[in-house]
Amino acid sequence: MKQSQLFTKTQKDALKDEVSVNAQLLIRAGFVDKEMAGVYTVLPLGLRVMNKIENIIREEINALGGQEIFMPSMQPKENWLKTGRWDSMDDLYKVKDASGREAALGPTHEEIVVPLAQKFINSYKDLPFSVYQFQNKFRMELRAKSGILRGREFIMKDLYSFHLDEADLDAYYEKSKATYFKIFERAGLKEVTHLTFASGGSFSKYSHEFQAITPAGEDIIYVCEKCGLAVNKEIKAEVVECPECKNTQFREEKAIEVGNIFKLMTKYTQPFGLTVKNEKGETKEIVMGCYGIGLGRLMGTVVEVHHDEKGIVWPETVAPFQVHLLSLSQNEKAAEIYETMTAAGIEVLFDDRDANPGVKFADADLIGLPYQLVVSEKNMRDNRVEIKNRKNGTVEYASLDNLEILGYFQNK
Amino acid sequence: MKQSQLFTKTQKDALKDEVSVNAQLLIRAGFVDKEMAGVYTVLPLGLRVMNKIENIIREEINALGGQEIFMPSMQPKENWLKTGRWDSMDDLYKVKDASGREAALGPTHEEIVVPLAQKFINSYKDLPFSVYQFQNKFRMELRAKSGILRGREFIMKDLYSFHLDEADLDAYYEKSKATYFKIFERAGLKEVTHLTFASGGSFSKYSHEFQAITPAGEDIIYVCEKCGLAVNKEIKAEVVECPECKNTQFREEKAIEVGNIFKLMTKYTQPFGLTVKNEKGETKEIVMGCYGIGLGRLMGTVVEVHHDEKGIVWPETVAPFQVHLLSLSQNEKAAEIYETMTAAGIEVLFDDRDANPGVKFADADLIGLPYQLVVSEKNMRDNRVEIKNRKNGTVEYASLDNLEILGYFQNK
Repeated sequence: MKQSQLFTKTQKDALKDEVSVNAQLLIRAGFVDKEMAGVYTVLPLGLRVMNKIENIIREEINALGGQEIFMPSMQPKENWLKTGRWDSMDDLYKVKDASGREAALGPTHEEIVVPLAQKFINSYKDLPFSVYQFQNKFRMELRAKSGILRGREFIMKDLYSFHLDEADLDAYYEKSKATYFKIFERAGLKEVTHLTFASGGSFSKYSHEFQAITPAGEDIIYVCEKCGLAVNKEIKAEVVECPECKNTQFREEKAIEVGNIFKLMTKYTQPFGLTVKNEKGETKEIVMGCYGIGLGRLMGTVVEVHHDEKGIVWPETVAPFQVHLLSLSQNEKAAEIYETMTAAGIEVLFDDRDANPGVKFADADLIGLPYQLVVSEKNMRDNRVEIKNRKNGTVEYASLDNLEILGYFQNK
Repeated sequence: MKQSQLFTKTQKDALKDEVSVNAQLLIRAGFVDKEMAGVYTVLPLGLRVMNKIENIIREEINALGGQEIFMPSMQPKENWLKTGRWDSMDDLYKVKDASGREAALGPTHEEIVVPLAQKFINSYKDLPFSVYQFQNKFRMELRAKSGILRGREFIMKDLYSFHLDEADLDAYYEKSKATYFKIFERAGLKEVTHLTFASGGSFSKYSHEFQAITPAGEDIIYVCEKCGLAVNKEIKAEVVECPECKNTQFREEKAIEVGNIFKLMTKYTQPFGLTVKNEKGETKEIVMGCYGIGLGRLMGTVVEVHHDEKGIVWPETVAPFQVHLLSLSQNEKAAEIYETMTAAGIEVLFDDRDANPGVKFADADLIGLPYQLVVSEKNMRDNRVEIKNRKNGTVEYASLDNLEILGYFQNK
């Protein structure tokens, strides 16, 4: 894409009303725009990141056997009364139509997905299965102060699994842990993400969070010094040793919850009477698991973990473009390189603007694409282009030959 | 995909509480599920159709120069007060948080996109540009009776364009008409879609609707017998001749509005004071256009236009899969064909269920994929497979050679 055509612009100065690093950088670099507390517009650069995150998640959840659907935000009040959450859930938005009829604005989708599953489960042979979606959630957050980490409206991947018995749920649940680690690894959070034991509510001993360590974290976790597993603050008082390796030494860390998985057991199937006859003809309540990842929060966490004083440093897997092509008064040669590279399928943001080099370099560092490809008069005289690695600052050169430049990136 | 793994099932019998053909067929075939009046879940088969429609629209709107973004549903009340629509729009849902602060639940996005544009427009050189999104809209519809044609919650593509003057808007507006025709042509609605003149409100003489003729249509349009353009009911009383060719003969038709385009002029830029200095240094109010297509409505219209007494007849461009592979007790050979075809990138729904041929044929006709590939004992004896065209019922044969079967579909 040509930067001159991008309708967004970067902002040089720090924003006075944003305390979080993720919002500062994502707004200043033109990835998101804030409309009100906890409510953001995703701009073209940000949408490219979100789509990459979404595709990573989709590939991994499909591999886990999930079937993608899209459930509505407006949800019947009756369903929420049935589970008791119409009255018990503090952060539930309620809407009323002209006739006075009320509906819930979904913060989660158990109240839709359970009756939906009920329509299609006739026999134990229909189990197990799992469905998921990427869908907007609404939560009446009172402390919407952490940039895009905690929104009142946010896109979430929520997966729900249905099983004949607990053993089958357990097996799927264990597989889902591996899937989640793969997702966070692909999104560039491998080194910082810890499987964290959390309270399982009244139905299950533990649930699990995936916590990414960063100073911006709102959560406190205790990481086992021996095996790397963690427990969250909520259950730390209850456990004296690591639930995994029995070690008793923990270190305290600040972290962001980037995902969670939960054995719901029969918590939501019971109120809807979702049962099935097993092979022996016995009626059984179906057991469930749920598995969530917030996409905006994941993008914000990547920014918290991967940035420096100049701006964002995107991992290649989720960068909006791979290459920032900077033309310093050499638009003709740069345009040629741009055409060659985009034709070969490499994602290039081409800074063809009529702006001085200082502005272009500062913007490139702020936006944070993995590689900066500099076409300047000086480099042209030396018959070469400069390729700077945003992450470690190393500079390499390629000859002016378009194909050689292309080859450099194709071999990455 | 293997049909035995699809969690949805077809329903044989007509639904008592659905009057519309689109909802009858889409629900019975397992494309959507109804949660409440005007509110649907999109199931795996339906989501594949929606994604194809979305991709067609995205390609064409990108070619028109649109930049994709994603705006929020929750919108500040102040913005809606500014345009006067907080009080004037009857179908606006309003939500209130715990502190009593109200927000609008967006039925459209002028109140977000204008202030957003304002943040990035510093000079006439920043114009023109256009942004669009695929996003959930909320409208308090009282007559949500037409299946997925008129929802209270529905995904819409909304595009907004910003121009320095009316001449530039006019040029873009004309181009958008061609883009819209291309979209409806690609979605299989070429023959039935008519550009229809509608009221332009107080700011512009006409707006334009794209109306698809079908008996299920809620709108009445008058199609010029000579040139095929149409006028809607609202303005028919005002015009005696075709606005295009001056002919005076019209025929009355029922139709569904599948898209609309509107010159907003300064209707929304004025209340927000969105101005820019032109080349001569004169301050000008920016003029706007908006351009909408509802995705669920488009899917429903395709079903209204393309079905028969047995079920849906999907156009290839938006079909969830291209081929329905029906195995009649010949699962081993069928599985081989399935592997060969999916590996070659052909989208196959493989009916590997343990069900009798009658059930499989009826489901295949109901679901409506373009080709039914039948692997049966009888065909095996004749050393061939049967390929039935869902639309016209013609039957062709290919030899049992996997590559020959593959070649048949690759040459389509």
